[in-house]
Amino acid sequence: MRRTDRSGAADAFYDVLERRRDVRAEFTGEPVDDDVLRRILSAAHAAPSVGMSQPWDFVLVRDDDTKTRFQRHVRERRDRFASTLDPERATTFSRIKIEGILESTLSVVVTYDANRGAPAVLGRHTIADTGLYSVCLAIQNLWLAATAEGLGVGWVSFFEEPYLRELLAIPQRVRPIAWLCLGPVARLQEMPDLERHGWRSRLPLESVVHHERYSCPTDE
Amino acid sequence: MRRTDRSGAADAFYDVLERRRDVRAEFTGEPVDDDVLRRILSAAHAAPSVGMSQPWDFVLVRDDDTKTRFQRHVRERRDRFASTLDPERATTFSRIKIEGILESTLSVVVTYDANRGAPAVLGRHTIADTGLYSVCLAIQNLWLAATAEGLGVGWVSFFEEPYLRELLAIPQRVRPIAWLCLGPVARLQEMPDLERHGWRSRLPLESVVHHERYSCPTDE
Repeated sequence: MRRTDRSGAADAFYDVLERRRDVRAEFTGEPVDDDVLRRILSAAHAAPSVGMSQPWDFVLVRDDDTKTRFQRHVRERRDRFASTLDPERATTFSRIKIEGILESTLSVVVTYDANRGAPAVLGRHTIADTGLYSVCLAIQNLWLAATAEGLGVGWVSFFEEPYLRELLAIPQRVRPIAWLCLGPVARLQEMPDLERHGWRSRLPLESVVHHERYSCPTDE
Repeated sequence: MRRTDRSGAADAFYDVLERRRDVRAEFTGEPVDDDVLRRILSAAHAAPSVGMSQPWDFVLVRDDDTKTRFQRHVRERRDRFASTLDPERATTFSRIKIEGILESTLSVVVTYDANRGAPAVLGRHTIADTGLYSVCLAIQNLWLAATAEGLGVGWVSFFEEPYLRELLAIPQRVRPIAWLCLGPVARLQEMPDLERHGWRSRLPLESVVHHERYSCPTDE
């Protein structure tokens, strides 16, 4: 049997994992050192990918005009979502900040290029979306690396893909996946914002673990 | 300016990130302690998710008959892919082991349930796939946690989703995302299998990083 005690290295890893937050309000706007940024991007680039296709790209956005235009677009999409909610949920939602685009030091836009390594991408012939999955693995590496470096990351998803494609001159074949705000933070919250503001709660682990076959979860 | 030196905690994190491999041949089949497995699943469950929807489930598969049937399905899909390759690529591919289903201790099948937290999933109204993205972030957490614990993980993607859905009695609304082999390993390779066998090479970081706007990458 393997030992059950966590090693020091495992402890350090779990600490990063538990400190990671989706940051909106805590960005300070202070500079990010070039070496730190390079380590974070290298971490993303070291992710596994289907057929080793490495289908990701990273667009670093620091330009104020670009950020301001994107932030305006996101605010419109936020208002649209708010208008679909019942009054109680709308009140809860009104307290939740959904982006720190202007306050964060820079943004990293992560994209997916299905042509990378094509046509014979090993392992993608059965499931086309595995290329998308690879990009997400890179994003999580980036997120954790930034946390390990003491920085914060906030994933903004209130946007329309065609708008972002045009804003950053992204080719039609390439799909924008995430707009990530990145930079130093005053602190990392201990509890996710959505939990703190009563939007959703953490599900018990037991409700999402099944044995041998999928059974109906009891949580909802 | 932030310091450029890596802290001890960051070093330990990057070490896990760099040791992580997509394992096929190195599984030993030794037992995995229940506490270790629980920590790894808890790491996955601690991932960020759109609107805190936590849309993932984990089916732990240890049954030999289930694993044998899935392995047979994967072998067929492997043969089908091989038949599409030109002779040179087919020779390279013939040397590559694509799964360790029977050799690994257990498998973790990760699924996506779009109904979790619906209908008003905060942040998913603009991009339906953000739910899928969340599941992938959980998978990368699982993968890194297993690596930190000294175990190996191998993502098998040569399968048809309807086949796996039927094999594990997964409901129609739920999408199987990944079959992950998990367990102790004799060692972790230093270089990814696909690179070692000459299928693909690591791209330079510079070729996937852009500034302010997307420009055509020079790598391909």
